[in-house]
Amino acid sequence: MSRTPLQPGTVAFVGAGPGDPDLLTVKALRALQQADVVIHDRLVARDILDLANPAAQLLNAGKEGFGPSMSQDDINGLIVAQALTGARVVRLKGGDPTVFGRLDEELDAVSAAGIDWHVVPGITAASASVAAIGQSQTKRGRNAAVRFLTGHDMKGFADHDWRTLARPGEVAAIYMGKKSARFIQGRLIMHGADRATPVTVIENASRLDQRVLSTTLERLPADLAEADLTGPALTFLGLAPRAAEAALVQSKQELA
Amino acid sequence: MSRTPLQPGTVAFVGAGPGDPDLLTVKALRALQQADVVIHDRLVARDILDLANPAAQLLNAGKEGFGPSMSQDDINGLIVAQALTGARVVRLKGGDPTVFGRLDEELDAVSAAGIDWHVVPGITAASASVAAIGQSQTKRGRNAAVRFLTGHDMKGFADHDWRTLARPGEVAAIYMGKKSARFIQGRLIMHGADRATPVTVIENASRLDQRVLSTTLERLPADLAEADLTGPALTFLGLAPRAAEAALVQSKQELA
Repeated sequence: MSRTPLQPGTVAFVGAGPGDPDLLTVKALRALQQADVVIHDRLVARDILDLANPAAQLLNAGKEGFGPSMSQDDINGLIVAQALTGARVVRLKGGDPTVFGRLDEELDAVSAAGIDWHVVPGITAASASVAAIGQSQTKRGRNAAVRFLTGHDMKGFADHDWRTLARPGEVAAIYMGKKSARFIQGRLIMHGADRATPVTVIENASRLDQRVLSTTLERLPADLAEADLTGPALTFLGLAPRAAEAALVQSKQELA
Repeated sequence: MSRTPLQPGTVAFVGAGPGDPDLLTVKALRALQQADVVIHDRLVARDILDLANPAAQLLNAGKEGFGPSMSQDDINGLIVAQALTGARVVRLKGGDPTVFGRLDEELDAVSAAGIDWHVVPGITAASASVAAIGQSQTKRGRNAAVRFLTGHDMKGFADHDWRTLARPGEVAAIYMGKKSARFIQGRLIMHGADRATPVTVIENASRLDQRVLSTTLERLPADLAEADLTGPALTFLGLAPRAAEAALVQSKQELA
């Protein structure tokens, strides 16, 4: 028996945040509770999916950090088809859907089908990661700007403004930067970056299994290989964890 | 009668998000509900403060976009003094405390006093603003990086990498950019930016009184003056609202 809706449903593109279910927004939580269908990325944690309406159908769109296992066209088609049944569809994406979330392609498809949509922002990994290490993304007298980069794009490793990124005091949050760590390190050093620049990698930010790797630009690839991080990780160029920073200041004072 | 605590209280540095109370995280809402004292910035909306524990003391730290009316030292002292009474203190900041929130200075003071603290991230204005105009901060084939800038810093108008910001396809979220709009426009055009580059200013993002000004780099200062935006606003360089973008594509096709 097929559903014959009087009108198409709606699609909410919802940010699931960095992983801790308590870092969902109230609006995101409500959307999950009212959903008929939840189409989620593979990396959205089970304890977040458990917050959805028990009657909701959960569909795994199977996207991973490195390319979708379901094609983007298939995902677009799935979202549209579900909404056309009249369902309230939540398209649940890790972090913030507007940051490296391929939101536009799905919005285009939903718009073209004449379906109503809205976007519920989420806490992006950069924000949860600096909170975890007690730092700010920006700081008076240090950096009046912060950049979010991706380690790779459609063509492979992503190219960036290495010259300006290599300058002292620059802060950048690198998404999906594990596999491109050696490439990024090489480009930055080639453009004059200090090898002692602090770099911090935060795995599973905000979750109970969160791990923090505090290293330098020089040691980044070796330390990453040794740490063998398997979960999603964010790399902060130019930031050290707060305790390490304090220790650094102290050891400089001891040497002085 | 003074309180003589057995142990000092705690301080939670909490992001209040962009303005819509539903864009608080679950964790932020819970912190407000359990607070003994809430020390908030002037710009945090009344309907968010109303979510705090009714028994909580609400203290306005009075900071505004352009410099504090209470000095930063005074604010630091207030937070520490309240925590030392044994209170659960929530230091509530607009948006995300790690983005242009002067978090570090307050963290330093609290750490130095031996008080336990943690940071609860919030939805930053950039995220709510792009959600409001149906855009992503990053997009495959357009920009593999996004920057958050501030229009001014301690020394006045903030200097940035104008040369790279002036390139086609660059996307930047400019915080506190209204008063520096003419400065920023001048620097970008001097470095070769296309005068037709789309610029969108979102006032009171996510709130019922949200307004969107869609303009170009060339018209930005004049349009801003005419629009007379009085609320907090975020300026997106390189992004047009989704509908306007669609209309632009359409008109190009009509001309072809």
